[in-house]
Amino acid sequence: MTELADLSELARRRGFFFASNEAYGGTAGFYTFGPEGAALKRNVEEAWRDHFIRELGHMELEAPTVMPEPVFEASGHLDTFDDMILECGDCGATHRADHLVEDAVADIEDAEALPPERVADLVAEHDVACPSCGAPLADRPVDEFNLMFGTNIGPGSASPGYLRPETAQGIFVEFPRLKEYARNQLPFGVAQIGRAYRNEISPRRALVRVRELTQAELEHFVDPERDDPPLERVADVELPLYSAAAQQGDGGLETYTVRKAVDEGVVGSEWVAYYLGESMSFYERIGVDTDRFRYRQHLPGELSHYAADCWDAETEVGGDWVEVTGFAYRSDYDLRKHAEYSEEEFTVFRQYDEPKTVERATVDPDMSYLGPTFGEAAGDVADALEALARRDRSAFESEAQRVSEETSGDTPRDGDAVTVEVDDESYTLPVEKTGFAVEERTESGEHITPHVVEPSFGVDRLVYSVLVHRMETDEVDGEERSFLALPAGMAPTSVAVVPLMTKDGLDDRAHEVAEELRAAGLEVAYDDTGNIGRRYRRQDEVGTPYCVTVDYDTLEEDTVTVRERDSTDQERIAVDELPSAVRRLAAGATLSEL
Amino acid sequence: MTELADLSELARRRGFFFASNEAYGGTAGFYTFGPEGAALKRNVEEAWRDHFIRELGHMELEAPTVMPEPVFEASGHLDTFDDMILECGDCGATHRADHLVEDAVADIEDAEALPPERVADLVAEHDVACPSCGAPLADRPVDEFNLMFGTNIGPGSASPGYLRPETAQGIFVEFPRLKEYARNQLPFGVAQIGRAYRNEISPRRALVRVRELTQAELEHFVDPERDDPPLERVADVELPLYSAAAQQGDGGLETYTVRKAVDEGVVGSEWVAYYLGESMSFYERIGVDTDRFRYRQHLPGELSHYAADCWDAETEVGGDWVEVTGFAYRSDYDLRKHAEYSEEEFTVFRQYDEPKTVERATVDPDMSYLGPTFGEAAGDVADALEALARRDRSAFESEAQRVSEETSGDTPRDGDAVTVEVDDESYTLPVEKTGFAVEERTESGEHITPHVVEPSFGVDRLVYSVLVHRMETDEVDGEERSFLALPAGMAPTSVAVVPLMTKDGLDDRAHEVAEELRAAGLEVAYDDTGNIGRRYRRQDEVGTPYCVTVDYDTLEEDTVTVRERDSTDQERIAVDELPSAVRRLAAGATLSEL
Repeated sequence: MTELADLSELARRRGFFFASNEAYGGTAGFYTFGPEGAALKRNVEEAWRDHFIRELGHMELEAPTVMPEPVFEASGHLDTFDDMILECGDCGATHRADHLVEDAVADIEDAEALPPERVADLVAEHDVACPSCGAPLADRPVDEFNLMFGTNIGPGSASPGYLRPETAQGIFVEFPRLKEYARNQLPFGVAQIGRAYRNEISPRRALVRVRELTQAELEHFVDPERDDPPLERVADVELPLYSAAAQQGDGGLETYTVRKAVDEGVVGSEWVAYYLGESMSFYERIGVDTDRFRYRQHLPGELSHYAADCWDAETEVGGDWVEVTGFAYRSDYDLRKHAEYSEEEFTVFRQYDEPKTVERATVDPDMSYLGPTFGEAAGDVADALEALARRDRSAFESEAQRVSEETSGDTPRDGDAVTVEVDDESYTLPVEKTGFAVEERTESGEHITPHVVEPSFGVDRLVYSVLVHRMETDEVDGEERSFLALPAGMAPTSVAVVPLMTKDGLDDRAHEVAEELRAAGLEVAYDDTGNIGRRYRRQDEVGTPYCVTVDYDTLEEDTVTVRERDSTDQERIAVDELPSAVRRLAAGATLSEL
Repeated sequence: MTELADLSELARRRGFFFASNEAYGGTAGFYTFGPEGAALKRNVEEAWRDHFIRELGHMELEAPTVMPEPVFEASGHLDTFDDMILECGDCGATHRADHLVEDAVADIEDAEALPPERVADLVAEHDVACPSCGAPLADRPVDEFNLMFGTNIGPGSASPGYLRPETAQGIFVEFPRLKEYARNQLPFGVAQIGRAYRNEISPRRALVRVRELTQAELEHFVDPERDDPPLERVADVELPLYSAAAQQGDGGLETYTVRKAVDEGVVGSEWVAYYLGESMSFYERIGVDTDRFRYRQHLPGELSHYAADCWDAETEVGGDWVEVTGFAYRSDYDLRKHAEYSEEEFTVFRQYDEPKTVERATVDPDMSYLGPTFGEAAGDVADALEALARRDRSAFESEAQRVSEETSGDTPRDGDAVTVEVDDESYTLPVEKTGFAVEERTESGEHITPHVVEPSFGVDRLVYSVLVHRMETDEVDGEERSFLALPAGMAPTSVAVVPLMTKDGLDDRAHEVAEELRAAGLEVAYDDTGNIGRRYRRQDEVGTPYCVTVDYDTLEEDTVTVRERDSTDQERIAVDELPSAVRRLAAGATLSEL
């Protein structure tokens, strides 16, 4: 069996994860985490929270997963969150057109970037057949399919809503309130761990391409001119980088320290470099095999128009590279869009170092002149004058005043008169009737739209990668053994208690020991079924790092055997030292150090 | 201001919760938990997990929130998860018809139980007007509106799906796999904490009636004949009970121990009584005021037809009673429905104490006779014979054999011939051609459908209740003080570190102290803005139980002041004892005991 088939079998049999609703034939793209998987996933999330929220001092929030349509008009998801779909005329099966082309055409790897018409042409040129029924697809149109799950909020269809395609929008829309909690001071970060949804046309590869997923996203709001990341925290962290240049040339992976990557300009944004550095210890902590891991820079064609630099963290599973995190410098795009589409300010007040004196042009139109002269248009003319004063005050100034200035081509003027346009009509009036004046004002600062640095983690893919990377086999007593070499802090069960026999009071004593460990806050399993070797194997398979065996010596000497999963080494330890010993082991001590 | 208005103001200003998407005018029924609220909610969930999963030894899973339609055909939600809706003919606003009637008619408190036609009549009889525009509603129809949010899974509308209205269904549908993880042994419990959705017609009362909520549900699968709850664990727990009898008569709240409630039959199901007992300490732990708390039994009319006994835990907020938990004995209803609608078995094999010898009637029809005689119907006739043998073997037995038996009315027979019906046609043949025989078999057990005991907690309502119950005011130094008297384990921040001044190195030392506490795993806030009294108030308001003040003595003697939120008492403590001291305080020690 392949690595991924092995994992799938283990995941299902031992309760890590399995396809949902199998009693009803299954629902493609939906997975349920069973007891072991839910615990592992929670541990990964808790490690993320510990590092990216607690340690870095960011805020966390919990927003709804259903959001109203205007949010996604602003974010752009309604227009552009599409995949190319192609429906078979014979069997009605739907396929991702870009995937069909990638599979059929040897030298095309990223058909998603092509226009739909070109993809349709390629389908025809290469005689692509329907993967479900074999019918030719040459005459079929390629359409855009929006990947958001739609619904209706309240009765009727007057308030369309969508399941959020990313947790980030729940943070962006609340920025006006969140900045209050940050006391209006940049930089500050807000994180969210929660479900996101993508109505994939062809879900595949188990937890890699699913329709309901868990994201852990951090939106770090920064002042682009004043805030620098605390690079010194991570300057010496080594990063396996696969740069755009290397991808386009024949280069490969190169290891850089964060400092060197910044100094040599390999990573374009210091903020992105900083978060690459912060993330490395997180991947190690949760058990990603760093030999099957890289940071890949987006190629120029992959970059969103607003993104200055983007890198993905990728893990290798089953021979493919899978994106597990996106690191993006998103500029002010998100907040600016929401400011444009909503009725609130998405800015922060930036205090100047010194108050500044600025000139400001104002008008105070003489309405007793404008009213009779322009009739119903008078109010609009007054507004247009105010806008013009802000935009181009030279339009109000006499020839003498602006003798040295260039004429502004799009502002019609006529001596001491000024002309504005309202609804395609021109209105001209003497400057003296506009109340034009230039005032000096002292300003203490200005409103700026913060920039956003976003590390966005896919929790399901991380859990999947860790499981794939940690499945190991060796030989114990001449028999092959499978075990899951999870870091102690990630294992669903911290310690299993197994009585040697279920008689002579061994089981009662084992129950007591399990209770004591549980009371010490550890995740404890109790297993008394089958012979002891089989019980060890069962714990090995779900990654339990330590087994505590209660035997006859326990009754006499109050000691137990502690067996280590990876080495299968055993040590005797006094029962009353057990909770602290297990905690030290979980924190990284070895058995022989106890 | 009223209690609830006070809370709403505090919740918004300090970041506990607020209406979502206000930048876009808000979205009724959706709330976002800000940093303080998300932390409190997580602490409540963690306390639930600790008690109902870890301590009671149950499993936890994480299932998708989107589920396919067949699941809700089986569960009954598609047919019956409705509210009565009435649309105003003038302004188009939609209202809950039952609520309109309850508000308009003095002696109707539960209009939901009435048929829609009757509700429409009551609207007309009482001249109910539209609350939005005042137009009369007398001529408007009352319809059923399904409260599930619908969507489509994959492209097109061939696979309708719904946002789950309760987390429980994600557990029930996976029962066939979950019982494997429980090694096919009853009883076992499976829990889930996650989002659920109800497309309310009229969301109201902040977190009480929302469209997206968080549930913590436990489905305990038991053998109804063999499994008894471990009542002794909670026998002496005192429960404030408001029984159906008391509600129907003029009785009030009465306190019973769990044991007494069972012995006197006040709580009808021992399992329900057991979980009432288990839950009491949980409510206390998270900070519910038990003087504003009761268990209310469902009235006979409220009970689902399959439920033997149901109690709700209710909290009093703002003068109303709010259901925060439902405790139900659901019999085998859920698993039986899924067995009926799906293609899997939802049973567990129950081993007999002793193997049983049972007689079993079988047939082995002579097809060389049936074929020529019945032609195409021969196969169906053979199947019908087998079914008849199982159902009524006397049909095959001669008059002599069954001389003492009653004639079975619906099975036609004729001497030594036997007759079966297939598609409304009768087929008669001699018994000897059926290969009829009675065998003795030894059976070791039977397949049974487990019963379900379900405690179902509404997390948002619990958080809301705790906030309402813990808002307190007193007087400190002649000024009114507001504080949130949260239990230490629930507080968003465990301890705040405040430097007396931000000079002379006090702030540097305070940062170090905060780091040490953080490294010890505590949730730490650092606050150096404004005068010290104001900082204390700020922490009081979000429920931080302890403030640690770094002052000039800290620099000289390495001690700090620890201030207790509720009493405002202060004690000096050595810095190196601080982490363990704060942990002991959080576990219930008082300041003077340190």
